[in-house]
Amino acid sequence: MNFADSLGHTEELVEEELARLLESEFVTGASERLVAAMRHAILGGGKRLRPFLVLESAHLFEVSRERALPTAIAVELIHGYSLVHDDLPSMDNDEVRRGRPTVWSEFDDWTAILAGDGLQALAFEILVASSKDDAHSGHGHGVRSSLVAGLAEASGVRGMVGGQALDLEADKLGTPSPPDSAYICRLQAMKTGALIRFSCEAGAILAQAGQGEQSALRAFGTKIGLAFQIADDLLDVEGNEATVGKAVAKDAAAGKATLVSLIGLEEARGELSRAVQEAKLALAPFGGRAETLLQAADFVAERDR
Amino acid sequence: MNFADSLGHTEELVEEELARLLESEFVTGASERLVAAMRHAILGGGKRLRPFLVLESAHLFEVSRERALPTAIAVELIHGYSLVHDDLPSMDNDEVRRGRPTVWSEFDDWTAILAGDGLQALAFEILVASSKDDAHSGHGHGVRSSLVAGLAEASGVRGMVGGQALDLEADKLGTPSPPDSAYICRLQAMKTGALIRFSCEAGAILAQAGQGEQSALRAFGTKIGLAFQIADDLLDVEGNEATVGKAVAKDAAAGKATLVSLIGLEEARGELSRAVQEAKLALAPFGGRAETLLQAADFVAERDR
Repeated sequence: MNFADSLGHTEELVEEELARLLESEFVTGASERLVAAMRHAILGGGKRLRPFLVLESAHLFEVSRERALPTAIAVELIHGYSLVHDDLPSMDNDEVRRGRPTVWSEFDDWTAILAGDGLQALAFEILVASSKDDAHSGHGHGVRSSLVAGLAEASGVRGMVGGQALDLEADKLGTPSPPDSAYICRLQAMKTGALIRFSCEAGAILAQAGQGEQSALRAFGTKIGLAFQIADDLLDVEGNEATVGKAVAKDAAAGKATLVSLIGLEEARGELSRAVQEAKLALAPFGGRAETLLQAADFVAERDR
Repeated sequence: MNFADSLGHTEELVEEELARLLESEFVTGASERLVAAMRHAILGGGKRLRPFLVLESAHLFEVSRERALPTAIAVELIHGYSLVHDDLPSMDNDEVRRGRPTVWSEFDDWTAILAGDGLQALAFEILVASSKDDAHSGHGHGVRSSLVAGLAEASGVRGMVGGQALDLEADKLGTPSPPDSAYICRLQAMKTGALIRFSCEAGAILAQAGQGEQSALRAFGTKIGLAFQIADDLLDVEGNEATVGKAVAKDAAAGKATLVSLIGLEEARGELSRAVQEAKLALAPFGGRAETLLQAADFVAERDR
């Protein structure tokens, strides 16, 4: 299977699993409106890059897709909730996402806030839900605690939520003014980097791999997180709105500092290519087994949406 | 120690632990503003009823305060985040809570949303953080998975978040119109009942108690959750704003249906007293060991704030 097929296959698998989850006993008793908002938030779009990284990092250690899937889903639920909250009028005030109305503009603010809150709780619930495989292996619970700890760190105030706060402080409060590239890098490492890094580490956690292998995946995740963000900024400058599926040139219009605006297009392309190289280097210990993850590093840098 | 002293002692312990947590490595790297908002949300107020129920239900099984404390803190973090989000202009639009400005009115909407999101992630992180005691007992991880599953269910769309959605649907969308007492009971069992019920069950989970004992605590928690909500509605009608620490008579002014408005004061007082009796009955299997929890049932019904 080539890389594009492999990514597409995961996209389908994740879509199906998310659809199943949002009709399952995990949402029984919740209002139809709330579940509809969660489905609107999470179904029908997205590259599912983070779940792909979870499944592929697990595959490095021969952890089955079946056993890695709940973690992949949990990461996507966290990513999805963050988009719902980030799009809110009091945050980024975005009306379109993936070519469709954002949750608050389709429903309303309070429904969007609650749908996001519910998706976050569901992510942690899924992460500890039993799987047959875990029960047989006899060490499932220790793994689950590590996954919860890792996902909470990556998504909380030391990670994603904290990065969004730094971003909005610069945007709305003008502190710091102007933000320098160290500030931008720190906020992006938290806002988008942390969850991508955890997605890559998750395979090692699931496999109870040694510290060396976990660190290698952590380094890989950190670098592709950086590459992802630079590529995102470049897309905002160079991308086509129809392809990207959301407003482009938005950062420049808003006078928002990004790495691209601070260091320029050429320099940013150089940083991107360096990040991809370093990501690949981090996978050296895995040799040929890491082929798909190596391709993922290129994909992250070259994607057009 | 009498009941009031015991409650006061827990209040101090929880306050200290929360203050310590919000200065610890768990918030390292987060922006000062975000952490300040979290501290504003969570410190300096509240009866700490839910942590008290966690610690006392644990005490039934001789689970140490030290071992039960992370769970008690996690429950309070969830409760705290829910208040921050519920107070938002797009939800209940409350400017005062516990006699102080709410987080959004002290900071702003986006800071309040992110502080709440961060508190939720922190709750799950605390729940799985290692404790010395767990390591010795050798079964810590299974317990932690059960706690995460229980807290996620109680706080997510089948519990607290789902209940708030039902509440706002009735309030803002007028569906159903008018809500009947079955609808009100369902929403309250989810919105406030589920987390109180989990707080009571947590002791049995920590102790890996048998199904019978866990069910007894679950039944107790369900009934005092109901009592808590009826008492809250009665306070809104009969209470004094200075004592209660937030606006009273707000429900009636807003034309909001509550159990009290639907069935009347006298009938509601009868329901309250029945709920307390049933809560106490549920604890019969524990005999004299449950003395403090029996007193807690009375406290919930008789509190003046």
